[in-house]
Amino acid sequence: MFEKEYDVIVVGGGHAGAEAAAAAANMGSKTLLVTMNLQTIGQMSCNPAMGGIAKGQIVREIDALGGYSGIITDKSAIQFKMLNKSKGPAMWSPRAQNDRMRFAEEWRLALERTPNADFYQEMVRGLLVEGERVVGVRTSLGIDIKSKAVVLTNGTFLNGLIHIGEKQFGGGRAGEKAATGITEQLLDYGFDSGRMKTGTPPRVDGRSLDYKKMIPQPGDAVPEKFSYLETPVLKEQRDCFMTHTSREVHELLREGFDRSPMFNGRIKSIGPRYCPSIEDKIHRFVDKDSHQIFVEPEGWHTVEVYVNGFSTSLPEDVQYKALKSVRGFEHVKFFRPGYAIEYDYFPPTQLKHTLETKLVENLYFAGQINGTTGYEEAASQGLMAGINAHLKINEKNPFILKRDEAYIGVLIDDLITKGTEEPYRMFTSRAEYRTLLRQDNADLRLTPKGYAIGLAKEERLYRMEEKQKQSKAFIDFFRKTSFAPEEINPILSSVDSAAVKQSDKLFKVFSRPRVTMAHMLQLDAVSNFVNEHELSSEVLEQAEIQVKYSGYIEKERNNADKLHRLENVKIPENFDYTKLKSLSYEAREKLQAIRPVTISQASRISGVSPSDISVLLVFLGR
Amino acid sequence: MFEKEYDVIVVGGGHAGAEAAAAAANMGSKTLLVTMNLQTIGQMSCNPAMGGIAKGQIVREIDALGGYSGIITDKSAIQFKMLNKSKGPAMWSPRAQNDRMRFAEEWRLALERTPNADFYQEMVRGLLVEGERVVGVRTSLGIDIKSKAVVLTNGTFLNGLIHIGEKQFGGGRAGEKAATGITEQLLDYGFDSGRMKTGTPPRVDGRSLDYKKMIPQPGDAVPEKFSYLETPVLKEQRDCFMTHTSREVHELLREGFDRSPMFNGRIKSIGPRYCPSIEDKIHRFVDKDSHQIFVEPEGWHTVEVYVNGFSTSLPEDVQYKALKSVRGFEHVKFFRPGYAIEYDYFPPTQLKHTLETKLVENLYFAGQINGTTGYEEAASQGLMAGINAHLKINEKNPFILKRDEAYIGVLIDDLITKGTEEPYRMFTSRAEYRTLLRQDNADLRLTPKGYAIGLAKEERLYRMEEKQKQSKAFIDFFRKTSFAPEEINPILSSVDSAAVKQSDKLFKVFSRPRVTMAHMLQLDAVSNFVNEHELSSEVLEQAEIQVKYSGYIEKERNNADKLHRLENVKIPENFDYTKLKSLSYEAREKLQAIRPVTISQASRISGVSPSDISVLLVFLGR
Repeated sequence: MFEKEYDVIVVGGGHAGAEAAAAAANMGSKTLLVTMNLQTIGQMSCNPAMGGIAKGQIVREIDALGGYSGIITDKSAIQFKMLNKSKGPAMWSPRAQNDRMRFAEEWRLALERTPNADFYQEMVRGLLVEGERVVGVRTSLGIDIKSKAVVLTNGTFLNGLIHIGEKQFGGGRAGEKAATGITEQLLDYGFDSGRMKTGTPPRVDGRSLDYKKMIPQPGDAVPEKFSYLETPVLKEQRDCFMTHTSREVHELLREGFDRSPMFNGRIKSIGPRYCPSIEDKIHRFVDKDSHQIFVEPEGWHTVEVYVNGFSTSLPEDVQYKALKSVRGFEHVKFFRPGYAIEYDYFPPTQLKHTLETKLVENLYFAGQINGTTGYEEAASQGLMAGINAHLKINEKNPFILKRDEAYIGVLIDDLITKGTEEPYRMFTSRAEYRTLLRQDNADLRLTPKGYAIGLAKEERLYRMEEKQKQSKAFIDFFRKTSFAPEEINPILSSVDSAAVKQSDKLFKVFSRPRVTMAHMLQLDAVSNFVNEHELSSEVLEQAEIQVKYSGYIEKERNNADKLHRLENVKIPENFDYTKLKSLSYEAREKLQAIRPVTISQASRISGVSPSDISVLLVFLGR
Repeated sequence: MFEKEYDVIVVGGGHAGAEAAAAAANMGSKTLLVTMNLQTIGQMSCNPAMGGIAKGQIVREIDALGGYSGIITDKSAIQFKMLNKSKGPAMWSPRAQNDRMRFAEEWRLALERTPNADFYQEMVRGLLVEGERVVGVRTSLGIDIKSKAVVLTNGTFLNGLIHIGEKQFGGGRAGEKAATGITEQLLDYGFDSGRMKTGTPPRVDGRSLDYKKMIPQPGDAVPEKFSYLETPVLKEQRDCFMTHTSREVHELLREGFDRSPMFNGRIKSIGPRYCPSIEDKIHRFVDKDSHQIFVEPEGWHTVEVYVNGFSTSLPEDVQYKALKSVRGFEHVKFFRPGYAIEYDYFPPTQLKHTLETKLVENLYFAGQINGTTGYEEAASQGLMAGINAHLKINEKNPFILKRDEAYIGVLIDDLITKGTEEPYRMFTSRAEYRTLLRQDNADLRLTPKGYAIGLAKEERLYRMEEKQKQSKAFIDFFRKTSFAPEEINPILSSVDSAAVKQSDKLFKVFSRPRVTMAHMLQLDAVSNFVNEHELSSEVLEQAEIQVKYSGYIEKERNNADKLHRLENVKIPENFDYTKLKSLSYEAREKLQAIRPVTISQASRISGVSPSDISVLLVFLGR
């Protein structure tokens, strides 16, 4: 029924699976996406939003490399916000609210328009393995589909178990079946698996809410967007709303604690620390009388509403009683209650940097199966797995992003080096070089790489090169052009900056605190240059950041380069740490288990000390 | 968690459930639609099309009464065709191809915009019954939701069992869970249940087909639409394509017959006779070397394609091999194989004309649960169940359509009077008065009734009255206006009709065969009248049909009226037929089981002869 042999089979059609299939197919691999339901490709299982702090940077990186998440997000956005705009540009983080139905539809259509991407609807029950290499999948009908590589992106479906209060039932998502067979088979092949937990809040009828009692959360006045390509900018936006829980709400929730699967021991697995359930928040922060709740519309037209901040697996009657006591929710009607779900994951230390498993060749994992949480984390892993599956079967070099090159690099390096005991979520604080890893320069950082491997198209490269060229020319202009004290001093005085006595280069005053591009544009020379070269707002932003943060950027660049030298010290694949008795016991054990590829990676393993690294360096002849 | 007591709870969100919820809510009942998945409301489970012969008339009737199916169809149509336009107007049948995703989305949004309609996502496991009256439902979480009436529209979900070749597994639709609990409970209450079977063809990737080898099936050059309200008319359309099976294809299919659940006894239930599987067609029509296959796009943009005419539950490898041998399908790629599904239904003789069950008060059944097949049949039952549930709990007269008033009347009367042993589908031949039950006059027949019960809005009535008034005026014009022989004879000669010698009324020549409205419009007097009164194409069509078919229409009207007299002879509710020994044994048995409400209904029961009717009439004092 199928191609004699596909190049890549992707199992699952969520954020990870969709990006994996798109990447492999766009690079030229004959790709088959197998999913239990073709109508749920690109489903936003939880909140109807993409991006946010650190996550927005990841979406920009996916886009810069040639992935689809940014484009889909722009096409289906109903609101856009640049978060943290008051902080330094390393912290700026784009976020969009999305129309859930439109998002899934755009994903489906984007994949359908991708040459080399085929589709098949059925549950995958197992893998076909020959020797230690995967050679395809077996479906629940018993159909064997052959391929050179397989990417597993099973999300919460592997032996998914849904909890609401004291009730529990199998399911991969509300109203959808769980998937079975794969975990059991992988255990036979020697994999370790664990259980994780995540949760989702109730969905409610927007017509039953009193928005007048809540605080509107509009989008940006001048909304930006995610993709570096020409995607639509929002002309209209839908508001979100904010409200709060209260002491009374907490009391009502507490009444259900004895029936909560979180507290009565029924759920043993660990949930996402930074996306806790409401009962968890109350339990952990006893002193807090109030928590924020964000009321997010599910689309342009639907009345369905997502109650962000009220994730819960308490009994449905407790959910209802408590939510009714939240301001604006007095007459709330439920579309469905919140729930928790437990699912199988595979500790990601069992993976290589390419996301290929160490135990089974050409088998890749991406998304929640690796113990992560979040659409963006999943999508970026899918992208990298798809890319690397394609490269591997074509005997090309793996594509690995370093920690100073991308949040995606940080994410994967963290996962495979440190593993994770709880659902892993990205933060800016996880990146050592976050001044380098900004949302504004993801194209400059990554598009040339995406183009080099054959994923990003020429148009992307061209746009990025134009931006780079123009930014550079503009910065050079600031370096070369002098000002007269009498024209600059009024500006300096307006921002409480000391006056200058003699002429100097513009770069110098522009670098001062509180002096912005807006001020610079008051100077005729600057505004003339901008007009003459028809510089876009992206170029202005880029030049401003590079001028004003040049010090920080340079410092991080130097630190990163230093570490790169260690990165170049490769450790032989079968290196036997157990024989190196001068290593600490803990270091020996962890190194043997994780098998870092470079000294740099070894240094990031918790429990491996600088003196262990010295021992290794000496042994490797450095 | 819910209203203290809903007026009406509708279980299921397909065509029947959606219409039932819309009708009850629009009439003012506090209505809750409960479905296993809110994202699949309004799913087209099988082909992406609405209408067709007799079915198109039903959609027009639903629309005329104030239902939504016509509006949704118009908003999501990608092609429109008036079938049988070469035959008499009783046979004209509108049909649309639809964008599957858009259809479901429009249904969801239409319901969301309906005041009084609430939604809840969960499986219903059972009914709450007090005495012999339903008072609500119980969900799988064990939540009791109270209501005055319940409408069950479970489609193929009740103990659904999917078959592909020798494999079988539980499911309500491909990729969706079956529903359990309701059948078992109803059996306890004394209901009879049975099993029926239906099937669906493979879905394939349109990019893998060679359309150049097929025959395009475009829509009408001037597409019409379904709704009598102002819905969009198609400006662009997508083509369907036709191809054929061959002797070779049949041979390949036959090779799988020993593994077919249809032929090896695994499927015992009866499938839809007029929508047979391809294996059934080959088996039954041994002499036929070829069957038609219609290739239907699933939407405006998607590449997914529905292979109409190739419904099958043969093993997937057999499906594939055979379909590959169909012209244009040489390189076909499957999205999913076809399958058969068995599900529980309840013989509809257990219902009253209102679709309320005889055994449990205020419990209504609509759609496949009554043994019907087809979206239109389901939708119309849903509408009638929703209407009657509302009327009953408000102690108003039931709303019953007679056989000479609507196909919907024929449908329901057939179901509850004759029952059905196989999935019941509507045909024009089932209607005795099909010249009365045309697609062009559904508004004239039904909108006043829909308005009277509070469902159709004023706008509908106004539009219908305008059309009626103008048509009548135009027909009067033909009756009153005389022609001169010299102006009419060239027209008559052009259609080979005998010349006239003297002046007469226009009506007379217009009534002649082959003389059409287009000919009439060549006369200045006619075209002046049309322009002066700004008559729409609907009015022209209406007038033309009423003039040209006035003889037939009148005859059927008279026949129907005669029968109405019998309709007025009511049979007492607890009439004991067993004591009426002069009835034939068969008649006694059937009458006792079916319990007709009128002599007219009794006369339509198979096995009840005219002499039995005479006996009854005598006994009832007529």
